[in-house]
Amino acid sequence: MKAFPDCLPCQVTAALKTLRKATNDETVVSKVMIEVLHILSDYGYGVPPPRVFREIMRRIKAETGNPDPYSRDKEEQNKRALSLYEDLKGKVKGAEDPFHEVLLISSGGNLIDAVIEDRVSGGLGSLGSFLIDDYPDLRKELRRASRLLIVGDNAGEVITDRLMIEEIRQRWEGEIVYAVRGAPTLNDVTLGDIQGLGLEELCSILSTGDDTPGVVLELCSEEFREAFEAADVIIAKGQGNFETLEELKDPRIFFLLWAKCEPIVRYLGLDRSGPVLLRSRP
Amino acid sequence: MKAFPDCLPCQVTAALKTLRKATNDETVVSKVMIEVLHILSDYGYGVPPPRVFREIMRRIKAETGNPDPYSRDKEEQNKRALSLYEDLKGKVKGAEDPFHEVLLISSGGNLIDAVIEDRVSGGLGSLGSFLIDDYPDLRKELRRASRLLIVGDNAGEVITDRLMIEEIRQRWEGEIVYAVRGAPTLNDVTLGDIQGLGLEELCSILSTGDDTPGVVLELCSEEFREAFEAADVIIAKGQGNFETLEELKDPRIFFLLWAKCEPIVRYLGLDRSGPVLLRSRP
Repeated sequence: MKAFPDCLPCQVTAALKTLRKATNDETVVSKVMIEVLHILSDYGYGVPPPRVFREIMRRIKAETGNPDPYSRDKEEQNKRALSLYEDLKGKVKGAEDPFHEVLLISSGGNLIDAVIEDRVSGGLGSLGSFLIDDYPDLRKELRRASRLLIVGDNAGEVITDRLMIEEIRQRWEGEIVYAVRGAPTLNDVTLGDIQGLGLEELCSILSTGDDTPGVVLELCSEEFREAFEAADVIIAKGQGNFETLEELKDPRIFFLLWAKCEPIVRYLGLDRSGPVLLRSRP
Repeated sequence: MKAFPDCLPCQVTAALKTLRKATNDETVVSKVMIEVLHILSDYGYGVPPPRVFREIMRRIKAETGNPDPYSRDKEEQNKRALSLYEDLKGKVKGAEDPFHEVLLISSGGNLIDAVIEDRVSGGLGSLGSFLIDDYPDLRKELRRASRLLIVGDNAGEVITDRLMIEEIRQRWEGEIVYAVRGAPTLNDVTLGDIQGLGLEELCSILSTGDDTPGVVLELCSEEFREAFEAADVIIAKGQGNFETLEELKDPRIFFLLWAKCEPIVRYLGLDRSGPVLLRSRP
């Protein structure tokens, strides 16, 4: 999905927020913000927004000397999500269709902060239902698959991905690979961020080898591209992975996300934000 | 006040909002948004934000062919404010110090939409008290003045300015001039917008001759500059007039505004947003 005009205020806002986390030096903040405007106008609408934010993030990290501005946020988000783990696990177990339930919970994984702050009434157990639901397709494809690749997204959310992987493990024998970002970018998880969260015992962990907050295959490592190629089914989590991967029109990919921002809601033909399980189609 | 990094997301957001009001043609919106990024990076932090927004506004009007994107909003805002007029008039009359009360109400004039939507509990009659209050100075200066210039700001707010002028008229014999923008810019009032609002009967009306959503004297008409020069006391309403005029350090100027945005709150040394009556000091 190429960038929309609405992406510009959003990216300028995200850049400033990231800069303020990265440094207290307002001279650097001021300088980099002008560079951010240049990056945005140079890229225009030619590429997906996460591809542009990769360059913004790199500039911020280089100019502030802070390699991981969201380090503390990610730690905090994982801690909060872990505190919900048992409760969510119970909700999955008690559901009529636990796999469908855990997909819904995982789609809302990056709402965890809002849940903790009680802005999502009823918590992640009351997320309504998918606005687009290609669950039958996913089940069918998984049944005949032997390799599943899950592309992760944010901190916090990763705990709901663990729940999802646990659920898949119970009913499916194939190989599961969980991919994270190759270097810090926004609050997306990297190899370092998921240590000790219990994912290593459930599946293989792989890095994309790139710090786009999404997946741009040309920028990824050879190793990741091979894993991507070899997968029979791919579950891509969150908006960033959707924005960068939907252009492939690859029917192996199932996008599992909470459609949050107006451009994505509109692009998906929805009339409101909400959970989506969408199979990519040629 | 020169622009801060925080002004950039704000101006990009305002530009997009204005564009969407001005046209339904997304191709034009997309194109102009890139030009907005260029304008913002060209000006950087060298001038007050309204000076930059003047250029953004001009570009938007020229490229969309819409000379007044906020036309309907302004009409609606004036209508809403007029519906509160009698109530506010009563509150002023019933106050212990009606002049002080009407200044407070006028400082909150551009909160009228929030009042109507009940987001300001208690309405404009319960605005708390000034966070900075140079009222004694204003009274003293007015007593020995014979010419008062009031520089208006937004639609809606203009009705609270009328209340203020009515109150001043009751206790003061001098000449009152009310200045509006020279051409449409955001929801600021122009000569056309204030017709029929009852201001003409109370004072002289003058245009700045320029479409900055603030006052940059070099860009104003000769006529306005003369009126500005001749005034003994100047009441400048709202954030835009503050941002552009505070650099003059002209003690004739009293800024009457609701400090709303973070950069202005910080610049004024406040710890929260709220009403301000600040005398400009050398």
